[in-house]
Amino acid sequence: MNMYDVSVPVFVHFLKSLAAILRKAEAHCAARKIDPVVMLGLRLSPDMFPLSRQVQIASDAAKGAGARLSGSPVPGYPDEEKTFEELQQRIAKTIGFLEGLDARQFEGSESRQINLKAGGRELSFAGGAYLETWAKPNFFFHVTTAYAILRHAGVELGKSDFLAGGQ
Amino acid sequence: MNMYDVSVPVFVHFLKSLAAILRKAEAHCAARKIDPVVMLGLRLSPDMFPLSRQVQIASDAAKGAGARLSGSPVPGYPDEEKTFEELQQRIAKTIGFLEGLDARQFEGSESRQINLKAGGRELSFAGGAYLETWAKPNFFFHVTTAYAILRHAGVELGKSDFLAGGQ
Repeated sequence: MNMYDVSVPVFVHFLKSLAAILRKAEAHCAARKIDPVVMLGLRLSPDMFPLSRQVQIASDAAKGAGARLSGSPVPGYPDEEKTFEELQQRIAKTIGFLEGLDARQFEGSESRQINLKAGGRELSFAGGAYLETWAKPNFFFHVTTAYAILRHAGVELGKSDFLAGGQ
Repeated sequence: MNMYDVSVPVFVHFLKSLAAILRKAEAHCAARKIDPVVMLGLRLSPDMFPLSRQVQIASDAAKGAGARLSGSPVPGYPDEEKTFEELQQRIAKTIGFLEGLDARQFEGSESRQINLKAGGRELSFAGGAYLETWAKPNFFFHVTTAYAILRHAGVELGKSDFLAGGQ
């Protein structure tokens, strides 16, 4: 197992799951005449982020990890998506960025120091701990929360949609 | 990165987060005079599992991965927990099992064939794919869903409770 194997293909697999889940949500809106803006604004609690932001943060966790572990600049995506189509483009762009990274750039990254700011704090990790206790857990947290919001809203989804990688 | 490093310490870290989250939920019940049975039975959707089952499945994902990747029998825990205290014991037992595994038992497990039954299907994976696209995603899915149920129920939690490993 090298750092590439436990990062890029994992993010890509579950970004494809997220895209497939959002396609089902969009179809649900069309079938029930639900305004997509309403669906994308749903939250599980008033002080939690809405669905659209869950997708953006999952993208951020994936591209941030791919960039930092490969020693590339983190691409900045302006969080302006307001439609399912725009969120699909965001996910596709994130997958494209990750798939453009070279596995050799990840060599040695498990012990490379990773610095980032989160919630106004400066954090520092070895690359392995960054990936396993920060980036991937954050990524799965937001993909799962997107799924949970949609399940709570009555969209017909099952855990296989989460696991299947869009297959 | 070896298979031990990307499995056992990750599961232990987030099981400790889950234990801390459940301690806050239990304190919330006590402060608001909420019957813990009600809280442990909450679901985000009628066809999703309740909180108590989310905790049990997170435990199953963690102990299953630890056992299969180390070539040990999967310990059977009888899903009978009905109180916060019993769920804490389940989590502690899972952590104890994982911490008792020897890192050397995981050597070569990334390419070892892992067979399991899930939802009536027979599945087969290489160990690395089993861990990264099945066991850990399932684990994070259920820890996050437990968190989401509690946030939706008004328990005061933040993402740092999810990330902090009980610290």
